[in-house]
Amino acid sequence: MNKEQAIEILSKNQATLAALNHAVSILYIDGETIAPPGSAQKRAVTLGELSRMAYDLVTDREAVAALEYLYGVREELDPVTRRNVSELWRDLDDTRKIPKEEAAEYSMLLAEASAVWHEAKVKSDYALFAPWLEKVFDGAKRRAAYLDPTRDPYDVTMDQFERGLTSEKCDAFFAELRGRIAPLIAKVGDAEQVDDSPILALYSIEEQRKISDFAMDFLGLDRRYCVLGETEHPFMANVDKHDVRIHTHYYAENFLWSLYSVVHEGGHALYELHVGDELTGTSLAGGCSMSIHESQSRFFENYIGRSRAFTDRFYDFLLDAYPSRIGIVSKDEFYRMVNKAEPSLIRTEADELTYSMHVMIRYDLERRIFDGSLCVADLPREWNRLYGEYLGIDVPDDRRGVLQDSHWSNANIGYFPSYALGSAYGAQYLAEMKKEFDPFAAAASGDLSPVRNWLEKKIWRHGRMMDPTDLFRSVCGEFRPSVYADYLEEKFTALYNL
Amino acid sequence: MNKEQAIEILSKNQATLAALNHAVSILYIDGETIAPPGSAQKRAVTLGELSRMAYDLVTDREAVAALEYLYGVREELDPVTRRNVSELWRDLDDTRKIPKEEAAEYSMLLAEASAVWHEAKVKSDYALFAPWLEKVFDGAKRRAAYLDPTRDPYDVTMDQFERGLTSEKCDAFFAELRGRIAPLIAKVGDAEQVDDSPILALYSIEEQRKISDFAMDFLGLDRRYCVLGETEHPFMANVDKHDVRIHTHYYAENFLWSLYSVVHEGGHALYELHVGDELTGTSLAGGCSMSIHESQSRFFENYIGRSRAFTDRFYDFLLDAYPSRIGIVSKDEFYRMVNKAEPSLIRTEADELTYSMHVMIRYDLERRIFDGSLCVADLPREWNRLYGEYLGIDVPDDRRGVLQDSHWSNANIGYFPSYALGSAYGAQYLAEMKKEFDPFAAAASGDLSPVRNWLEKKIWRHGRMMDPTDLFRSVCGEFRPSVYADYLEEKFTALYNL
Repeated sequence: MNKEQAIEILSKNQATLAALNHAVSILYIDGETIAPPGSAQKRAVTLGELSRMAYDLVTDREAVAALEYLYGVREELDPVTRRNVSELWRDLDDTRKIPKEEAAEYSMLLAEASAVWHEAKVKSDYALFAPWLEKVFDGAKRRAAYLDPTRDPYDVTMDQFERGLTSEKCDAFFAELRGRIAPLIAKVGDAEQVDDSPILALYSIEEQRKISDFAMDFLGLDRRYCVLGETEHPFMANVDKHDVRIHTHYYAENFLWSLYSVVHEGGHALYELHVGDELTGTSLAGGCSMSIHESQSRFFENYIGRSRAFTDRFYDFLLDAYPSRIGIVSKDEFYRMVNKAEPSLIRTEADELTYSMHVMIRYDLERRIFDGSLCVADLPREWNRLYGEYLGIDVPDDRRGVLQDSHWSNANIGYFPSYALGSAYGAQYLAEMKKEFDPFAAAASGDLSPVRNWLEKKIWRHGRMMDPTDLFRSVCGEFRPSVYADYLEEKFTALYNL
Repeated sequence: MNKEQAIEILSKNQATLAALNHAVSILYIDGETIAPPGSAQKRAVTLGELSRMAYDLVTDREAVAALEYLYGVREELDPVTRRNVSELWRDLDDTRKIPKEEAAEYSMLLAEASAVWHEAKVKSDYALFAPWLEKVFDGAKRRAAYLDPTRDPYDVTMDQFERGLTSEKCDAFFAELRGRIAPLIAKVGDAEQVDDSPILALYSIEEQRKISDFAMDFLGLDRRYCVLGETEHPFMANVDKHDVRIHTHYYAENFLWSLYSVVHEGGHALYELHVGDELTGTSLAGGCSMSIHESQSRFFENYIGRSRAFTDRFYDFLLDAYPSRIGIVSKDEFYRMVNKAEPSLIRTEADELTYSMHVMIRYDLERRIFDGSLCVADLPREWNRLYGEYLGIDVPDDRRGVLQDSHWSNANIGYFPSYALGSAYGAQYLAEMKKEFDPFAAAASGDLSPVRNWLEKKIWRHGRMMDPTDLFRSVCGEFRPSVYADYLEEKFTALYNL
């Protein structure tokens, strides 16, 4: 075998695998959006079969021999091929550690668990979901043990979403953050409160759909390759850079919820839409890690989307599109309403200040389930207790409590810390951008291209060419949570006249 | 190898193939509904890969050996397994005749052609679509030559949708039908015309969505397994009996168009939802042929949906849901408006009387393209000429002319005759039903179960256990187009006081 032959064998194998992955993505999106509720079982069987086919492709003798050959000569390869080969080698190693049937059955389990979670959330019926959740957690623990029996299983699980992240790092980050945020939340609680009730229900769902168009245009999302759908729990999913889907959920009682879901998922979408063309068809063509991904979505949602520059522009749009309605409040009041900080039940609807507390609660619970000190049956009780401890609020039902997130039914366990990390990264992006240009002037002008171009150059186009910590360091130097805490302190001190 | 071993090998092979088919169905639905317009190329590549994988599965040496063994002992098998083995044997024979790469490239071509057709239709730009359409027709001709070089290629093509159908049979059927319908259309044209303009725009698209719910409930579609989506060209697609999707298109200017699309596609859906459980997992679990399928959709659309029993019930629903609006006309006027017969441009919106003329035009064009006497470049001119000849109307643009149907971009060539055959079959179903019960009394009561139960027992549950001509004969005896012509004559003579 020579290099060219090996590359050809591997490319062919990867092209077939890409077709299977494409099918899996669309089946997943279909299941989360428009599929009939009674179709979950068949979809589960199909995903199990496709998982077996993918296993056979990844472990195909000829493809493995080609990969092995290329891995041996990796120093002679161009940078993209070298990184691709290294990543595929790593993936192959992981794939081989987990028995084929275990992987197939886990795919099947998740497809069904997701459908059960949808039903359980609507009915606020934790008992319906619990047996499935137990199986999902058990499966995740078994996978961690297969992947690396020598390490802490929760660290192994986190590593799947964020290479290099450990409980030790999370503990240090969360301790610092909570130490700064908790007193700030208390101070805001003692200050004069903001009443946003006059504006929340001003726009019908049909009107909110037009507001979504405004948000997508503001972000600069290319509609040829990015569409908006509707679902229970907002998410972004993509096939490649030419097929990106964002999904939102409209609520008649609060038009801001969907708006900020669209901006958040739109941030994820921008990332995928701008991965470098030279990575197309490789394993590198996608977001680097979940914290880097969430740092994009949270950046557009909060640093840009909840800035005065954006809220003023949005206010003007609303006044123009639906004359007089938003005029019942001033631009200043609107900015304060959009940024109202208050302990609340739902993570995705939380303000910037209290958001990370929601993440810490989930991190705490997941770790204890993983180390065996908490069982799935006790999850709602502990969830509710922690919402009291961290945020001082009572959880009225499981729908707005332990059943609120889709993550666990999809085995996204060890994923939540990425949201807090990503939120914190944004403060350092902002500081770096300000050295070169004014991102808020861009937002105010309605032309975000300076922001997009900066992120594209520094982050988006690189796909998975670097590990997440290296990528972040290349953009901002060392990670300093204090920059995030400073940002929050400054913003909310001004907003609440603390 | 013994029987049990062969069945197990074949079952496993079929299960994997079913997963691929499931993925292909969902990718198709996705492409026709919510996928970003720029995603077609990637989807084409994926469908090409999946086609290759399916080819490898169908022609897998072990599976073929098992099938061959079972085909040899088919007389010893139970009826379902015997029929399944015979059908798979036939499919294998067809698959082997077409080179693997030819099949894969045709799958890719159709995925892209479909996206181009969507764009061309919106822009009314035939020149954009013509090069693709040419390739689709060329591919269809090549396939016919591969499948059976000894027969007329258009007959071979029709056989794919309707086993046993030939141009000879079509010619005889259409000649008889046109002979009876043409004078009737002329008479209706000379009679006092019906003005339906006061009611067509009474309901917004949001309200039409609720009207769709009424129609789905009226048909008795089980929402656990059947959902309604939106698209450019209405269609039904299903994965299995637990996953059936119907799709409509709403027009603010005419609420009846979407209503009758929903009822039509709902008829297709009822068929698939009621295939016998004993056929699940076999190649027999689905509609028997396209004429039998269209005979279900057209039965609910016309014989039931345009009956006085239904229009009265629908009128009451409208009056109740949106008080006073439909009250501007009487029930009698409403029935006449719904059944207004007039030569028109769009097949799917045509009345019962003129409908088959649209089919004959397409049949004529397809045949001539197949025998080489018409080229794709001349299609619009000939289309427009035939609309003048058959229906006496001018075609103002290609969007409402040659670009109106999605069929050709999906290689559904030789399919159209099924609509006319299916429409005609319905008249004989009606006559048979009346021997046992009153289908219109069922429609009037809002409980269609006698109609559904009859069709389920006679047709739906049998799936592909019989060839279409045998199935029809088992229900109605010989096919007699005069029964259909009599029905139309009686209905429109009364409606127009001829």
